[in-house]
Amino acid sequence: MKNVKVVIWGMGAMGSGMARMLMKKTGIDIVGAIDIGAKVGKPIFEVLGEEYPNNENIKIGTVEDYIKPAIADVVLLCTDSFTEKAFDKIKLIVENKMNVVTSAEEMSYPKAQSPELADEIDQLAKENGVSVLGTGINPGLIMDVLVLVMTGACEDINHITSRRVNSLSPFGKAVMEEQGIGISVEEFEQGKKDGSLAGHVGFPESMSLMAEALGVKFDEITQGMDPIVTDVDRVAPYGEAKAGSVAGVSMTASGVVNGKELIKMDHPQQIEPEQVGVNTGDYVIIDGNPKINLVNSPEVEGGVGTIAMCVNMIPQTINARPGLVTMIDLPIPHAILGDFRDQIHEDAKIVK
Amino acid sequence: MKNVKVVIWGMGAMGSGMARMLMKKTGIDIVGAIDIGAKVGKPIFEVLGEEYPNNENIKIGTVEDYIKPAIADVVLLCTDSFTEKAFDKIKLIVENKMNVVTSAEEMSYPKAQSPELADEIDQLAKENGVSVLGTGINPGLIMDVLVLVMTGACEDINHITSRRVNSLSPFGKAVMEEQGIGISVEEFEQGKKDGSLAGHVGFPESMSLMAEALGVKFDEITQGMDPIVTDVDRVAPYGEAKAGSVAGVSMTASGVVNGKELIKMDHPQQIEPEQVGVNTGDYVIIDGNPKINLVNSPEVEGGVGTIAMCVNMIPQTINARPGLVTMIDLPIPHAILGDFRDQIHEDAKIVK
Repeated sequence: MKNVKVVIWGMGAMGSGMARMLMKKTGIDIVGAIDIGAKVGKPIFEVLGEEYPNNENIKIGTVEDYIKPAIADVVLLCTDSFTEKAFDKIKLIVENKMNVVTSAEEMSYPKAQSPELADEIDQLAKENGVSVLGTGINPGLIMDVLVLVMTGACEDINHITSRRVNSLSPFGKAVMEEQGIGISVEEFEQGKKDGSLAGHVGFPESMSLMAEALGVKFDEITQGMDPIVTDVDRVAPYGEAKAGSVAGVSMTASGVVNGKELIKMDHPQQIEPEQVGVNTGDYVIIDGNPKINLVNSPEVEGGVGTIAMCVNMIPQTINARPGLVTMIDLPIPHAILGDFRDQIHEDAKIVK
Repeated sequence: MKNVKVVIWGMGAMGSGMARMLMKKTGIDIVGAIDIGAKVGKPIFEVLGEEYPNNENIKIGTVEDYIKPAIADVVLLCTDSFTEKAFDKIKLIVENKMNVVTSAEEMSYPKAQSPELADEIDQLAKENGVSVLGTGINPGLIMDVLVLVMTGACEDINHITSRRVNSLSPFGKAVMEEQGIGISVEEFEQGKKDGSLAGHVGFPESMSLMAEALGVKFDEITQGMDPIVTDVDRVAPYGEAKAGSVAGVSMTASGVVNGKELIKMDHPQQIEPEQVGVNTGDYVIIDGNPKINLVNSPEVEGGVGTIAMCVNMIPQTINARPGLVTMIDLPIPHAILGDFRDQIHEDAKIVK
């Protein structure tokens, strides 16, 4: 079997990370990398600032260079967070008969907020015999899939708390701005009102994914987004928050079934949580039979986690029946330490 | 769609527990229950010591009564731990064109120790258009599937520790005897030598399942089984261990790849661990990128966990492509709070 062939669309932090990860793996090759602006035309090793013996030093190219009929088994699409923005790109890839794994948060369950686009993607994927998956660390694993996996041990469930307490300190300037680090409470409220502060993207998707798996329908899903105001000055590598200003965002969601909360999601993200005695971690707390009281501490860092999830789910996506798929349709995620080709069904391979 | 139809084969602790769980669920009916001896002919509610309005009070019957062509969508087989002992029963069910979910530990990955029987089951299942899954809490979730799911967030892995520290105190007399509670160290060593002490069944299966998913081949898997000798008198409801005698079994396994341990499994089980300051819990510790440091404490209790896993995996097994399947072939496990029929693909249903 030929090596698995991959095109990466978007050479930002996520796409570059996936490129680095893939170059250390066996049985899988990067055959194209797409970006815009100054990176186009540069060799990929130059952009990554590293070299990988035995890997081809392909050039970063345009969409026209690398989205061509069946030139890869899968395209890793790392350009957007929202389904609406990713849609045209997904359509183009699918019409060129390649599978898609995307880190776009809303694509983890696009039916939640874009049911018509989700239907269209599903239809297009089926017509072209390929699959489309959205995944990442969250949504994609920590606050939804891991929760569901633990419910597998439960006969019955009264209430679920899915909590992720994480540090924003490892992230760069863009994230500091997106999350409002250092701004005043008034600025935060204004940004929330005019939509310029997004906070975490993915709660409606994680909630809907869990509801479909558990077989429940929410009366409603409510979301909250509040500033984490710091009492002390906090300084992170790419952002700082003076006492009294915003050091992070507390995101919450509540899924109510038959008038009673079934799932609570709780996701405070801030810079330098250790400075104020906050222990970061991923928590799954299930009040059921049996009770579950799971913690992974410190939390899985979002960047590397999303990179790994997208790459590790490549075989499951290639092997899947054609259509739009989600993490509850596919076999369990896991790392791949051996040859990627051993994970692929012969009849599902595109580049024969 | 008609309700999902289930036959339970083996009305011991596991089978009875599955019956109780199923009777509280929607869209799924027990249409047969098989046992031997005095239970045969008795109404199921009498055997369970409970009543369930709206559920049929079927009688416990024989194999001949309930293993008939396609009378159920799935048979829950809860009679054995070992593939060799379960084989004839699985063959009979499959030839009667019904899917199988079994709690037999070795059936979670029968290729590990009975590759020829595994091939035969796979062949028979394919010929008859049905699927066969072995699952439970361990093997099936805690020490293998949960570990794999967490590796999904990892780019690379140096070492994995899969640890389950559990209490045997909730278990009955049979388990106390199987695990040698209260015997002397000499008796333990003798029982280990002559095979009368089994300890935990499932390490070769969990190891092989993880190896297949990760894409590695072990040079060797070594197993250890040592007595946990108590310093103090311990008393559990169904067993006791005087100071100096055996209060439990410490099971270990090591999976070596290219001369270096990749996976360590560590599973001490004992009565009254709290009495000696041992905190029970399920642990996944991954030295990789990123590091994972997960604990679920106290541990998921084995009985209810196995019952829930077998029942919750019914839809995935019915929906699976025909053949012998494992937990890494199927979509993720999860609880089902709604109608079981919503989880079943129309074309996979046997009792139309």
